[in-house]
Amino acid sequence: MLDTVDAMTTEDLMAEIGQRARAAARVLATAPTSRKNEALAAMAAAVRAATPDILAGNRIDIEAMKANGQAASFLDRGTLDAERIEAIAKALEDIVALDDPVGSVMTSWERPNGLKIERVRTPLGVIGVIYESRPNVTADAGALCLKAGNAVILRGGSDTIHSNRAIHAALRSGLAQAGLPEDAIQIVPVTDRAAVGEMLRGLGGNVDVIVPRGGRSLVERVQSEARVPVFAHLEGLVHIFIDKAADLDMAVEVVVNSKLRRTGICGALETLLVHKDVAESHLPVIVKALQAKGCEIRGDSRTRELCENIVPASEDDWSTEYLDRILAVKVVRDLDDAMDHIAAFGSSHTDCIVTGDQAAADRFQAEVDSAIVLHNASTQFADGGEFGMGAEIGIATGRMHARGPVGVEQLTSFKYKVRGTGQTRS
Amino acid sequence: MLDTVDAMTTEDLMAEIGQRARAAARVLATAPTSRKNEALAAMAAAVRAATPDILAGNRIDIEAMKANGQAASFLDRGTLDAERIEAIAKALEDIVALDDPVGSVMTSWERPNGLKIERVRTPLGVIGVIYESRPNVTADAGALCLKAGNAVILRGGSDTIHSNRAIHAALRSGLAQAGLPEDAIQIVPVTDRAAVGEMLRGLGGNVDVIVPRGGRSLVERVQSEARVPVFAHLEGLVHIFIDKAADLDMAVEVVVNSKLRRTGICGALETLLVHKDVAESHLPVIVKALQAKGCEIRGDSRTRELCENIVPASEDDWSTEYLDRILAVKVVRDLDDAMDHIAAFGSSHTDCIVTGDQAAADRFQAEVDSAIVLHNASTQFADGGEFGMGAEIGIATGRMHARGPVGVEQLTSFKYKVRGTGQTRS
Repeated sequence: MLDTVDAMTTEDLMAEIGQRARAAARVLATAPTSRKNEALAAMAAAVRAATPDILAGNRIDIEAMKANGQAASFLDRGTLDAERIEAIAKALEDIVALDDPVGSVMTSWERPNGLKIERVRTPLGVIGVIYESRPNVTADAGALCLKAGNAVILRGGSDTIHSNRAIHAALRSGLAQAGLPEDAIQIVPVTDRAAVGEMLRGLGGNVDVIVPRGGRSLVERVQSEARVPVFAHLEGLVHIFIDKAADLDMAVEVVVNSKLRRTGICGALETLLVHKDVAESHLPVIVKALQAKGCEIRGDSRTRELCENIVPASEDDWSTEYLDRILAVKVVRDLDDAMDHIAAFGSSHTDCIVTGDQAAADRFQAEVDSAIVLHNASTQFADGGEFGMGAEIGIATGRMHARGPVGVEQLTSFKYKVRGTGQTRS
Repeated sequence: MLDTVDAMTTEDLMAEIGQRARAAARVLATAPTSRKNEALAAMAAAVRAATPDILAGNRIDIEAMKANGQAASFLDRGTLDAERIEAIAKALEDIVALDDPVGSVMTSWERPNGLKIERVRTPLGVIGVIYESRPNVTADAGALCLKAGNAVILRGGSDTIHSNRAIHAALRSGLAQAGLPEDAIQIVPVTDRAAVGEMLRGLGGNVDVIVPRGGRSLVERVQSEARVPVFAHLEGLVHIFIDKAADLDMAVEVVVNSKLRRTGICGALETLLVHKDVAESHLPVIVKALQAKGCEIRGDSRTRELCENIVPASEDDWSTEYLDRILAVKVVRDLDDAMDHIAAFGSSHTDCIVTGDQAAADRFQAEVDSAIVLHNASTQFADGGEFGMGAEIGIATGRMHARGPVGVEQLTSFKYKVRGTGQTRS
């Protein structure tokens, strides 16, 4: 950590953080897997050993949040206890178990002239992570970037800065024990917004990509100000289309799970589209199952004709990510009408079709332009862990570089190794 | 093409071009391979048929360039004749033969719960290409983007606008014949710099990536102003390191070919680094072979001791991309010294080691952070065609998304298709 923070301008401070990160990234790029895993294990042990310090830091944060009148859900996200700290340590150990992507051969071929070409994974370099209140992101994001051979600059929310600093001290100690540069994982030690602005401008070429994790206003600021690439999604405006060939029981189970298993995650269902031919048979059953679990339904006119206790949907409902026990419902003419609705209102995150008609499923999965397109499965599977990727740093909805869950493999780039025996070009 | 150009502001004009491109991209995203190939073949035929029109347009451009006092090399790049137009048509046909990347399954796996996951290639969307004097780029870039299912907005140099318009008319005619949207390939019909600025701001979300093809000032402007991702390389500051275990004959052949086969391409050698242990045995032979072919050598003090007719190298020579018959030469202590030099002065494009020592080659290829790292082969192989990728739109040196030759596959993104049988998440 920098010791001279007080005497520096934010600009100079951030520039120095960038230079330290780049220097650490050079070392990490060729660090052996065993060394990185040793550091991750030492970090887990250091987090456990630092539990009293982390709890003490967290108490300061929580008291400040209470004094500032923060909402209960916000306080809950920011609060740590012994169990949550153990979960942080356990998550670090889980990253040890992931395959190291660096150096793996993605593809290889030989040219007629005998040149052997390999495309090999390399680290991305320096990753800037800007996040809000969950202090576990400090450890999760730091460790995931490290595993992929990247240095990381973490800028957490000011509300949890004491918690983040205590966790970060444990991470640095783990790095030092394994003989890796402590600057591999840095946190921004100041809380002013100007520091974020500096990160978004790329710290003089010393940030390769920005990952925002937080609410819409944070992600929008990042997307509008960033001069370096961003892995971001604005929101998960997730649709399910119940096709005319959908099995009713499957439709009910998939919709209820997609909407209500956890309402606050980005893979949670927000808008249900139902084919007009099965609206009468399927929609009332689905709606009753949701209502029985306390879900509010906002429906179009046809939904209101067919079901009871429906709030009239306004135009805004088609573009609202509720992250709550509310679902927008619309009856559509056919598959094309459903896909048009998704093209108009979707967020390119996750969408699903329930159908027994393979041709309809194939069209939906080919034509809907979303990172994850499901057939006959809950949208709550939109998650790196559920994909078998291990931990993820977020879900990207852009089309550049990473798309969908951003796991350790998506935090890498690649290079070409070309091996010859003296070939020259004619 | 827009018919009402004169009455519109550049901002409105460019916004409309963006909207048309996005609409075309939606159609292209699911266009079958046969349809795209039909368009490419029709475009080739239309280019051949339009040879008189293209030559007439080119004559206007050439006369203007002469009147403006452009250099001979610039005039040469901008000049078309029947042979060059035939080459443009032939290049379009070559793109027919490339595999269509869209829809291909990059990887697939099954989860323990039975979910089947596929990562499938999709188009990127809308690509903006900003290029300088070569009119063939109009056809090459347009066709390559089309093959990958992307719409493209082409902004060529004002010097060749009449040539570009005539070629573009042929491309549109090919698209129309195949029943594809003519807006799949648009050219910017105005020459003011403000149009480039609009493209770099992304036309309201309707440009997904910018590809600059041109000199340093163009690429620098694009990199500094772009608010959308860029596939760019500033320059190819290409190094060869002659290791102490290098075979002399191979070293001579690889260096001479890398420097002199074509000096104006980005894969041409610019700086030669020689291990001190073989400086006496190898360097004079290499230097004489280069000098015999008219290459100027700018050397450090040790090179000047060992060889004759050496211009003293200044500090600037280590960071100059000559693109000419000039080579900077330095004697280094060892492999680490060579890699340090490349880290300090390289451009992350292409670098090469000549050695018989596999361990030295392995370290060099692992540690040098360049898109293409060669062992015992000419750096002039840094080319999509030589890699077997077919046509390329450029060579990217960034670490995001595309790196190295940007061929048809690099002009795609991907999505995840998840197929279930009613799975829900517990």
